[in-house]
Amino acid sequence: MNWTTYLEEHQTEYVRDLCEFLRIPSVSQVKTEVTKAAEWVAERLHKIGFEHVQVYETKGNSVVYGDWLHAPDKPTVILYAHYDVQPADPLDLWTTPPFEPTIRDGRIYARGSGDMKGNLLLQLIACEALLKTTGALPVNVKVVYEGEEEIGSPSLPEFIADHREMLQADCVLDSDTGIDLERPSILAGCRGAAELEIHVKSANRDVHAGLFGGAYPNAAQALSHILASLHNDEGKVLIPGFYNHVDDITDDIRPWVTATPEEEQAILRNGDVKSFVGEREFTPHERSRLRPALIIAGITSGYQGEGVKGIIPSEAHAKIQLRLVASQSPEESCRSVIDHVLQNTPAEVDVTVDVLPGAVRAYKAPMDHPLLKWNAEFLTSLTSKSPVYRFIGGTLPVTVVFQDGLGLCTASIGFGGENFHAPDEWMSLEHFQTGQSVWCQILESIRDLKV
Amino acid sequence: MNWTTYLEEHQTEYVRDLCEFLRIPSVSQVKTEVTKAAEWVAERLHKIGFEHVQVYETKGNSVVYGDWLHAPDKPTVILYAHYDVQPADPLDLWTTPPFEPTIRDGRIYARGSGDMKGNLLLQLIACEALLKTTGALPVNVKVVYEGEEEIGSPSLPEFIADHREMLQADCVLDSDTGIDLERPSILAGCRGAAELEIHVKSANRDVHAGLFGGAYPNAAQALSHILASLHNDEGKVLIPGFYNHVDDITDDIRPWVTATPEEEQAILRNGDVKSFVGEREFTPHERSRLRPALIIAGITSGYQGEGVKGIIPSEAHAKIQLRLVASQSPEESCRSVIDHVLQNTPAEVDVTVDVLPGAVRAYKAPMDHPLLKWNAEFLTSLTSKSPVYRFIGGTLPVTVVFQDGLGLCTASIGFGGENFHAPDEWMSLEHFQTGQSVWCQILESIRDLKV
Repeated sequence: MNWTTYLEEHQTEYVRDLCEFLRIPSVSQVKTEVTKAAEWVAERLHKIGFEHVQVYETKGNSVVYGDWLHAPDKPTVILYAHYDVQPADPLDLWTTPPFEPTIRDGRIYARGSGDMKGNLLLQLIACEALLKTTGALPVNVKVVYEGEEEIGSPSLPEFIADHREMLQADCVLDSDTGIDLERPSILAGCRGAAELEIHVKSANRDVHAGLFGGAYPNAAQALSHILASLHNDEGKVLIPGFYNHVDDITDDIRPWVTATPEEEQAILRNGDVKSFVGEREFTPHERSRLRPALIIAGITSGYQGEGVKGIIPSEAHAKIQLRLVASQSPEESCRSVIDHVLQNTPAEVDVTVDVLPGAVRAYKAPMDHPLLKWNAEFLTSLTSKSPVYRFIGGTLPVTVVFQDGLGLCTASIGFGGENFHAPDEWMSLEHFQTGQSVWCQILESIRDLKV
Repeated sequence: MNWTTYLEEHQTEYVRDLCEFLRIPSVSQVKTEVTKAAEWVAERLHKIGFEHVQVYETKGNSVVYGDWLHAPDKPTVILYAHYDVQPADPLDLWTTPPFEPTIRDGRIYARGSGDMKGNLLLQLIACEALLKTTGALPVNVKVVYEGEEEIGSPSLPEFIADHREMLQADCVLDSDTGIDLERPSILAGCRGAAELEIHVKSANRDVHAGLFGGAYPNAAQALSHILASLHNDEGKVLIPGFYNHVDDITDDIRPWVTATPEEEQAILRNGDVKSFVGEREFTPHERSRLRPALIIAGITSGYQGEGVKGIIPSEAHAKIQLRLVASQSPEESCRSVIDHVLQNTPAEVDVTVDVLPGAVRAYKAPMDHPLLKWNAEFLTSLTSKSPVYRFIGGTLPVTVVFQDGLGLCTASIGFGGENFHAPDEWMSLEHFQTGQSVWCQILESIRDLKV
């Protein structure tokens, strides 16, 4: 039996397996559930025939490793993926519960369907189909699956440093991304990320708004002034130095971040959004791919219940995410945010700004690397179209981690989905099925890679 | 036995009763618990010997009525109080749980101890002591206790309109206030209140901060700009018309809102507050008593959990409370806030502003009313000091409600406490005991009132 037939015969089973995997609410912050997902993956690796399968403890969530190394003289490929997912709130905006996978209109809806349990499973299914039908894999494979990608992979660098020998390889294949078979593309770079929390304190407790309102400092009011100082009315960041170390967008790169007016309109329509915001001198795609951004991801202060409670809040908190580009240093960027916040803090309150662990710099692909050449040829043969290079606005810490830790180049080939990090995340059943064959082809094609 | 001895003999029992009353978590918004508090009060009225005791249903929480009308040719006095309390959050800032009354250092700590279950009980204890020791009350008493004061007494006006005959009286005595026996005072006026909620919507769902950050509208960011437009850096309200219809502070009134530097410092020190904010041209006491204020009472947007979630929030909400003075109309003031918010709304988002029910105008006492004259004489005889008039920054809807609904003047005599509406609310045991005697004296003294 060839692997095409094998895959066809197992579709019902694989969709059921994916649903089982998606039912584990492995939100990065909930270690017990992430561990369950790790064990689910490890068991699957065993079942397929991988060796040295182990769930490695780290300071955070565990890393799952397994290998199949019986292809002498062939390249060794690291398959990377993650089994943790973003938190699912706000829950009331989900059509069906995030951890009860539901199939509607040819899509699997669940937190983690597209990002990226579906994509992780594609790699394993391809290995299984190849091993069951040919008795071997075309290349040596080392699987490195982690449980902290959604919080910036804080433990992965140390895991790699601690296991450099075990992880020697020729390249990394990552499927934490989408694919557009109509417009195949190769990752040219992605933004970095850093996270901060702003804490405002105006008094040692909330006080009665009637007794003191008009004279007493208000943490919510102070925080609003601080946050309003971060962007101008158009949405451009006002922090001195925030746009330092950003590369000019040159003519050779510009086509890689170009969107048609129809594509821009589709983004607006899809989100019921009135208009884009941000730096007027750049297109929306340039703003969200090649320019840094400061995103207010959450605010909380004072009374949160029904109606209005007559208090003056003594505390206010904001969660901030930075997206960084080119050679911007996360540390330097966080420092500029902190300096600006402190300089724009009203005199009547105390402010602290915490930098969260897990910051990661932006990634730029080594454009002349053989892996990228292979990637281009593979996509051309798969789609009969010449792939374009593209920058993405998201962050793939793994690309930087493998570059820094093992000197390896990463190719990203994933089958994506929609509503990543948002309610009603989904992956199409069609992509889930196509992806299995494509991963078999990837492993067969890459056997000739010479790094 | 005289009532002094009677009270002394029953102190242990009364403190126990107060604790029992405080254990009912009768937060205005939780109707079942407010009903329990109403029934507790009604049972107590029965036990003391009140007649026509009834828990009246309203559209909101119930009103408890009871009377004792066997003092012919004597005035009829309405005793007003409320048995609902403010919500207790943030719970983690309480030293002991808010609904487990705890005695420390001569204070009873619990939500509602000072505001105002302790003060309500003082009225009942005084009536009980007088009835048990003299067989009668010095005046006719009608008790009107409600369960919605902390949400602006929305049902009380209709209750009064529906029971005008039953509620005929000469005056109202309200104890929802504090007392300073060293500096006795008479209420000259209090601020009104109105509440609004601002809802910002930037998209139909949260989106991935990496994919879109820098180009996609952000509800939290838009709300911050809106909220920051409400006050200048000093804390003065920037809404056009917000200070309309505000009386000048004339020289005859100024002494009634004067605080010593020591008193101002004590407020700052008590709250660990760095400095006052607001209109520089007025003193802090003037700002919070004779000037209107706009208070941001709560903000919520985006991710609320641990760490930072990489999303662009699609919704943001703020709770606003206005405090109004003089002849300011709540409707007009709310209108000016709405107009300003809409005019300062970034183009990329949709905003709605809801005005909550229960707004109430400010109260000015009729300064030549016989009740105020009695009030002054009573305080003079009680404290051997001449009382001063004072304005308070809080809102006593009942004063307006009884003025509008029954044409009655209200005198406020309460024994207060500290941390109203805040964590670690308390009432001193000394005030709780003194208050019982004082309420006996009040009822004896007021028998000669001629309205």
